[in-house]
Amino acid sequence: MDRLDLIRGIKGSDGGKMLLLVMDGLGGLPLETGGRTELESARTPHLDALAAEAVCGLHLPCAAGITPGSGPAHLGIFGYDPFTYNIGRGVLEALGIDFPLKAGDLAIRINFCTLDGQGLVTDRRAGRIPTELNQTLCDKLGAIELEGVETFVRTVKEHRAAVVFRGPELHGGQNDSDPQVVGKPPLEIQSATAEGKRAAALCNAFAARAREILKDDQPANMVLLRGIDRFEHLPNFSEVFGPAAGAIATYPMYRGLARLVGMDVLETGETIETEVRTLGDSLNDYDFFFLHVKKTDSYGEDGNFDSKVHVIEEVDALVPEIRELGVDAIAVTGDHSTPARMKSHSWHPVPTLLWSELCRPDDVTTFGERACNHGGLGVFPAVDLLPRLLANAGWLQKYGA
Amino acid sequence: MDRLDLIRGIKGSDGGKMLLLVMDGLGGLPLETGGRTELESARTPHLDALAAEAVCGLHLPCAAGITPGSGPAHLGIFGYDPFTYNIGRGVLEALGIDFPLKAGDLAIRINFCTLDGQGLVTDRRAGRIPTELNQTLCDKLGAIELEGVETFVRTVKEHRAAVVFRGPELHGGQNDSDPQVVGKPPLEIQSATAEGKRAAALCNAFAARAREILKDDQPANMVLLRGIDRFEHLPNFSEVFGPAAGAIATYPMYRGLARLVGMDVLETGETIETEVRTLGDSLNDYDFFFLHVKKTDSYGEDGNFDSKVHVIEEVDALVPEIRELGVDAIAVTGDHSTPARMKSHSWHPVPTLLWSELCRPDDVTTFGERACNHGGLGVFPAVDLLPRLLANAGWLQKYGA
Repeated sequence: MDRLDLIRGIKGSDGGKMLLLVMDGLGGLPLETGGRTELESARTPHLDALAAEAVCGLHLPCAAGITPGSGPAHLGIFGYDPFTYNIGRGVLEALGIDFPLKAGDLAIRINFCTLDGQGLVTDRRAGRIPTELNQTLCDKLGAIELEGVETFVRTVKEHRAAVVFRGPELHGGQNDSDPQVVGKPPLEIQSATAEGKRAAALCNAFAARAREILKDDQPANMVLLRGIDRFEHLPNFSEVFGPAAGAIATYPMYRGLARLVGMDVLETGETIETEVRTLGDSLNDYDFFFLHVKKTDSYGEDGNFDSKVHVIEEVDALVPEIRELGVDAIAVTGDHSTPARMKSHSWHPVPTLLWSELCRPDDVTTFGERACNHGGLGVFPAVDLLPRLLANAGWLQKYGA
Repeated sequence: MDRLDLIRGIKGSDGGKMLLLVMDGLGGLPLETGGRTELESARTPHLDALAAEAVCGLHLPCAAGITPGSGPAHLGIFGYDPFTYNIGRGVLEALGIDFPLKAGDLAIRINFCTLDGQGLVTDRRAGRIPTELNQTLCDKLGAIELEGVETFVRTVKEHRAAVVFRGPELHGGQNDSDPQVVGKPPLEIQSATAEGKRAAALCNAFAARAREILKDDQPANMVLLRGIDRFEHLPNFSEVFGPAAGAIATYPMYRGLARLVGMDVLETGETIETEVRTLGDSLNDYDFFFLHVKKTDSYGEDGNFDSKVHVIEEVDALVPEIRELGVDAIAVTGDHSTPARMKSHSWHPVPTLLWSELCRPDDVTTFGERACNHGGLGVFPAVDLLPRLLANAGWLQKYGA
């Protein structure tokens, strides 16, 4: 049985309040053999106290050995199988800049690049042009008109941008025009399927027009198109799982991912403190809250072990304020691991605690990777977290008689 | 590969004796933060000694966060995927009164209800009439004759009864006639599929005749029909897994579930002691025994923590007698959790020990929820228990070369 159908069939309509507190990239590694991870190094008296009353474990984002991107990692903790619901890169790029995608839109990543006189790529990132120049170029490309579709060109950052085509019968799945190596020309975009041929033709037309428009610009005189994807809404979170859901996140990407599953995105500020304040202010409006902390991941990516530790401690200091709100069930976890030692996402399982009056506490009394290995949740698939959170807040009815 | 096909392909024909000892609703919760569960509170020297020689863990009935009914919970520990083999409510009701269902029978739950002069439901349970009155009414309804089917009407308890139609081409999946709220008339039963139309017509004819027959009875002057289901045998336990299987259970429901998978149901008495005696007496007749203890669940449902503890201690006291029988592999577990604190089934994983001369003991030396978290079985799907029990008793051959 499809797991979403299973939950849909037993979902309730009036359980308690839930909080899914996600420290992005929470899982870590010791810098040296015998050392402690970021979470183990952080002084976290409040999270430890919560862990002592909670059931703990580690979730596997996606699957064993798999290092997930932000998209699949979040879908997993939102309860969606990340292999069934695969978000394409073009779509993720558009979500990441808060672009309001509509069902059926075709979303495409753009890399500005440099071509030589023979039309061969000499720099696939055009020397990582400043974001300001990118904006100027996107304004120029905004003038491109294509038969039968609306076109939206948007800056992302440095050499990266996005273009969205809106119109009938747009289907993704084509190759990228990026040749992946320098010394070759951009590739023609082709579709292996009949339904994708119209989109392929539009992409090639867009690239041709971009080349004309940018021919006198330097170093960014061409675009490479990547991750050509059609956007479709996922099954709606509240329709599948029951609770009305609000998302609190400071970064566009995570607001986009929350919107993708139909959560309402709440206005908030830039700090974790403000995010917690927003939680308190919106408590009566939703049953489920996704609260996203970005900087654990950012510092992990930077290889900045100490600053990642510091962000975790900052979250810890806000735990009493969160507990005072009287939320009925709280999960604290990450979407994946981002060990500062690796300066990247990784495959390591992610420490997780699940607290409610009805959780069954285990022997874990500190919140950390090693401690969670002894917890009552064991090492479990990320998609199993949300059903447990729902159960602990009374949102799931009995299955079968 | 289908898991039953996998086992079928490697099953042996002459392993040792196995016992699956199920304390219904065994898993529990502490009454207070920092407290002990029912099993942890019980004085269980013999189960602890067995756990010390066993491999321990906790099984997840059905799936994470899912609270199972008795049907799916038992199918899981019998080795059948409870989502693949879904037992309908009507069938479960008939199994629960030991009704000898045949393949192709249509089984339906009855609620006696009260209608007012306008034919609107005023009480969906007819004031929970005494079981004796229910029997009188069922006798009356037994006179109903329907074209082409045999009809069996049987009392369950209070306002609940069951009716079984036996005849060709009966298919389930119709709506209930229960309007779910008072102030509305019973619903007409309809079938969304062509194959279910004959059964729908029979159900409506039965309801119409029941209304005539009961029109002068008070307060139960009508029936609501629910959970209309066709009964089919599941793949036979011995055919799939190998061993000849005998079931020892004091409650009809669990005898019915055992019969559903083709186990022989053994005559036994009302006490756990008698059940163990039956096990000893039948030891030469079967390779596999399912021994079911009901009262752990009943006291859990009642919220009676201490009595649940006491039943566990009663089972513990019988463990030496069980061990003296020389069974080769013993699993002790529950079908699901029924914490007295919740007065209901719950989603919490179920403590499990698996003993044989060939199990690989872990560090667990007491049988309890927290202790089992540290066991060699980890937290595992319920359907994985039976293959392990079979392996420990030498019933499974090598897979592949």
